[in-house]
Amino acid sequence: MDALIKANHEHQGSYGGDEFTERAKKLFKQYFSDTTEVFFVYNGTAANVLGLSALTQSFHSILCSELAHINVDESTAPEKFTACKLIGVPTTDGKIYPQDVESKIQRIGDQHHPQAKVISISQSTEYGTVYTVEEIKALSSVARKHNLYLHMDGSRISNAAVSLKKDFRDFTVNAGVDILSFGGTKNGMMFGEAILIFNPVLAAEFHYRRKQGMQLHSKMRFISAQFEALLSNDLWKRNASHSNAMAKKLEAGLRPIPGIVITQSVEGNGVFAIFPKEIIAELQKEIFFYVWNDRINEVRLMCAFDTREEEIERFVKKIRELI
Amino acid sequence: MDALIKANHEHQGSYGGDEFTERAKKLFKQYFSDTTEVFFVYNGTAANVLGLSALTQSFHSILCSELAHINVDESTAPEKFTACKLIGVPTTDGKIYPQDVESKIQRIGDQHHPQAKVISISQSTEYGTVYTVEEIKALSSVARKHNLYLHMDGSRISNAAVSLKKDFRDFTVNAGVDILSFGGTKNGMMFGEAILIFNPVLAAEFHYRRKQGMQLHSKMRFISAQFEALLSNDLWKRNASHSNAMAKKLEAGLRPIPGIVITQSVEGNGVFAIFPKEIIAELQKEIFFYVWNDRINEVRLMCAFDTREEEIERFVKKIRELI
Amino acid sequence: MDALIKANHEHQGSYGGDEFTERAKKLFKQYFSDTTEVFFVYNGTAANVLGLSALTQSFHSILCSELAHINVDESTAPEKFTACKLIGVPTTDGKIYPQDVESKIQRIGDQHHPQAKVISISQSTEYGTVYTVEEIKALSSVARKHNLYLHMDGSRISNAAVSLKKDFRDFTVNAGVDILSFGGTKNGMMFGEAILIFNPVLAAEFHYRRKQGMQLHSKMRFISAQFEALLSNDLWKRNASHSNAMAKKLEAGLRPIPGIVITQSVEGNGVFAIFPKEIIAELQKEIFFYVWNDRINEVRLMCAFDTREEEIERFVKKIRELI
Amino acid sequence: MDALIKANHEHQGSYGGDEFTERAKKLFKQYFSDTTEVFFVYNGTAANVLGLSALTQSFHSILCSELAHINVDESTAPEKFTACKLIGVPTTDGKIYPQDVESKIQRIGDQHHPQAKVISISQSTEYGTVYTVEEIKALSSVARKHNLYLHMDGSRISNAAVSLKKDFRDFTVNAGVDILSFGGTKNGMMFGEAILIFNPVLAAEFHYRRKQGMQLHSKMRFISAQFEALLSNDLWKRNASHSNAMAKKLEAGLRPIPGIVITQSVEGNGVFAIFPKEIIAELQKEIFFYVWNDRINEVRLMCAFDTREEEIERFVKKIRELI
Repeated sequence: MDALIKANHEHQGSYGGDEFTERAKKLFKQYFSDTTEVFFVYNGTAANVLGLSALTQSFHSILCSELAHINVDESTAPEKFTACKLIGVPTTDGKIYPQDVESKIQRIGDQHHPQAKVISISQSTEYGTVYTVEEIKALSSVARKHNLYLHMDGSRISNAAVSLKKDFRDFTVNAGVDILSFGGTKNGMMFGEAILIFNPVLAAEFHYRRKQGMQLHSKMRFISAQFEALLSNDLWKRNASHSNAMAKKLEAGLRPIPGIVITQSVEGNGVFAIFPKEIIAELQKEIFFYVWNDRINEVRLMCAFDTREEEIERFVKKIRELI
Repeated sequence: MDALIKANHEHQGSYGGDEFTERAKKLFKQYFSDTTEVFFVYNGTAANVLGLSALTQSFHSILCSELAHINVDESTAPEKFTACKLIGVPTTDGKIYPQDVESKIQRIGDQHHPQAKVISISQSTEYGTVYTVEEIKALSSVARKHNLYLHMDGSRISNAAVSLKKDFRDFTVNAGVDILSFGGTKNGMMFGEAILIFNPVLAAEFHYRRKQGMQLHSKMRFISAQFEALLSNDLWKRNASHSNAMAKKLEAGLRPIPGIVITQSVEGNGVFAIFPKEIIAELQKEIFFYVWNDRINEVRLMCAFDTREEEIERFVKKIRELI
Repeated sequence: MDALIKANHEHQGSYGGDEFTERAKKLFKQYFSDTTEVFFVYNGTAANVLGLSALTQSFHSILCSELAHINVDESTAPEKFTACKLIGVPTTDGKIYPQDVESKIQRIGDQHHPQAKVISISQSTEYGTVYTVEEIKALSSVARKHNLYLHMDGSRISNAAVSLKKDFRDFTVNAGVDILSFGGTKNGMMFGEAILIFNPVLAAEFHYRRKQGMQLHSKMRFISAQFEALLSNDLWKRNASHSNAMAKKLEAGLRPIPGIVITQSVEGNGVFAIFPKEIIAELQKEIFFYVWNDRINEVRLMCAFDTREEEIERFVKKIRELI
Repeated sequence: MDALIKANHEHQGSYGGDEFTERAKKLFKQYFSDTTEVFFVYNGTAANVLGLSALTQSFHSILCSELAHINVDESTAPEKFTACKLIGVPTTDGKIYPQDVESKIQRIGDQHHPQAKVISISQSTEYGTVYTVEEIKALSSVARKHNLYLHMDGSRISNAAVSLKKDFRDFTVNAGVDILSFGGTKNGMMFGEAILIFNPVLAAEFHYRRKQGMQLHSKMRFISAQFEALLSNDLWKRNASHSNAMAKKLEAGLRPIPGIVITQSVEGNGVFAIFPKEIIAELQKEIFFYVWNDRINEVRLMCAFDTREEEIERFVKKIRELI
């Protein structure tokens, strides 16, 4: 917010020709690599879809977890914009694994069948789990072996970095990721995401795609200034560490309660748990959360950069009362 | 062929303004219903894709068998042209069933998720099985209940009609199908398929879609004349009866052979069977066929309108020799 | 900015389920009509393209000024998203007129030709001119006569309202406009535009298009809060009045200077003028502006809500020195 | 037709894996170049649209005559399939010229504007005129200079070759054309067109585009056999020479008639003429033809491979009687 106020008080070039954008891009290069190309867009769906469009022709397919955000939560934006087919790989923990991915790379060279071209993974995943560096490298090997690209939806990448205790570059550019959606909104920004393209060849005409994709912000400094703030003084890390810690605290509070089953390893800022059916509606009056799987009454509880300890405590207390 | 020669010797209007087209459309109306609208196109992929495009908006999804031709054998033409997501329903016999379909109709009203709008079935199916009238009506009920349309890929509809011993209309327009791809090429035509739209409202602007879809034939009489011949004097039925009979003969020849397992009920013109792995390559030198599932050495043997009894006999004899 | 700070300090529902969005929508209804449906998006290109997509099928064409933003400044976003052809109507003052529009409505009913479906106008225009209420009503009559819709790109609508001394509704919903892009960014907002749909039927499924169009903001209150501030206490009017006044001041400063020709009537916040070629580059060092037409050295000088009188004076002084 | 009967009597591989296709491709290579890649499709719209899609990204624009078939007679198929904007270059004789084309290559490198990437010309043109070899080479130079491709719609290319008394290769591959739509239907075929790609790099993935574009014919031998016949024994030349000669005969018959004005140079198989308004409707009862421009009563009279001399004579006689 302070960053925005500052950006507001200066006259600057439009469409990214400003100093905030220059500085924010420089910071990204420091975190990732000298040759990283950075494109700011408005939201996570756009970051994913435009990134994927730079990796594909219209007759390709994209392999991802069957639960991936791009597969179930972005309407048909990926299909509309890329014309590719999304192939869902089954998952139990939100991650996809080399053997399962490879079994879906089918009929290469057969003109009747969509041609696999991208593996897309979410870090952290939609289940709040986090790929290890080795897991990502293994998927990268599969991609290289079959001449595919590796794409990462990093709308919660800061939570993953904190969880892994690794630098961003260790599990992205250095692990074989080609294009990354770097999340801002879910880590405290008002709006804005970054698309990082690690191979400059893929970036050459990307500015045309962004404009065509209706994602070029005229007053780009207002996105850049937020990223500059986020990437400076470890703000991203403090925000993500906090939300991860809150998730851990929530898990710790829930685990002892009889009738509650934690369903996924809590590695990022989300807790997935089976709740007694009868308490869910009552709890939702207290605080908003999604029922993730209504057949088994599994709920999804996400902690944010601004979730407070008292909120967690009050929520756990409420559950104990209801059970 | 005779029909084509006849069409060749007359000067006629272009783009469908000819007598052949008029007569062929009339025959379709007799077979289906007075209000059926008929649009000729070049091939089966186009018939399916354009039909589906008339039923959908770009944010919709289409439910079909995971093995459906539209899902695995039409490149990404459905995604490119409709922008819809295709949702594969698991199948063991090529058919999809109400309960499985219904379980995939999810998150209706949720703007983040593709909205289910069409159930598409193949009759006969990609496994050579045939839906009963009751099965189709049951799917139609599911469609109506959830405000979806029912689409049928009938590239082998003549084989289904012969197998069911039913009139076309009994298991299409009268069973709740909204749009049908009526196959010509697979039943003996040189080229050409028909899209039948049973609800005139859906047909109102369809000619624009056909032209835009690059499927408007200037010399349309050459498609129409073939359909006129096919629908006259029961030619369609003779052709389909023959190919179905050949499949039955093939099945009868294969079933007693040790080491061969017929995997699907033979109801149309196809036989699916597991063969000993070592004979497949040898047999393919004799006659072309596809390996359907190479994990289990399942092959797909299709009989055509012009398959001869001797060919079947020679093929079976060859197998007996090889085993 | 104050509005944003306020929005930042409250916990609110996401995707528009917040009080800021509710209040902003209510304000729009007061300014336009009770049945106006309001959808917030990120930028002007998206507002135009998504609005047009709600009015068209893929085989349609859209008539607009040959200089329209949608025709020359939005990359191929309109074509990509709607698949429609844009038909440019010649213009000398940025406006299009009934007779010229009507001459471009051709071959209706002919399946080979794109079918005209929308007239799109910009208010104020790309040349800084403003349509009168009567001119808009006349275009609306042409639209109704031929069964077309009327769309308005109102990225500078506040400047037009101030110039016309009319209420927004007088030259939009009450003059026959079907969908309006209401500009926020060019009138002082950090980001955000509004799509106003005056016919609820056209709005029924629009939220799916917005999501698919990658324009659904999760933290929508940050757009809404800005619109609430803009539409309250006449902030929109003060901003637009100021930028219009600055344009008038600029015009007054330029007009007496020999060698400068004002090329368009100054009705909004823009001044178009032919400058001596030799001074343009020198001036651009002082302040950024576009050369609009380099054949005749016509430049485009836009005044903003925060342009200061001293800036105008300094700019005019600089020109006088250079000439 | 004889070719079709022959193709009908043999069992052959599908999707182009047959001897007819092999022979037809070989003939095309002989006529054009050893490295020419040949793809058969169903109709001329598809040939043009798929060819253009191989040359463009979605943010590009395509320059063509404002009267080009792709611009006014293919619905919005080019926009739907390529997402590109078509930029119409003004023309009086159906041709476009270097200076006019170059003036439309604007704002290269500006992300807000569609980026020019292809010049597309029709040979012979929609006005029946024929580009000389030099004119094509001049356009090719413009294309190379600005890093654009040169595309040719050759739906009437045989008429052009006969008119120019040149080999096909002289005014296509050797004159700098990158992709050519080679017309079959308009020169006597029942259905089928060929896309010739002269640069193998552009052809590498084209078979996927054809399938996705719903243009892959399973029984491809029926297209190939027709092309084989057309390209053998100079059949193409006899057909085109005949239709050109008939156009000349028609022109000769019309020119002396008072009140008739021949508007375009008759170089191919079409005659454009202004007729007295009162005789047009009466004539159309006799034989079908299009009114090309109803403001000036200009009609378009096309001669075909099977137009007979008596028909021309009867038509001219009828006109003399009516006037």
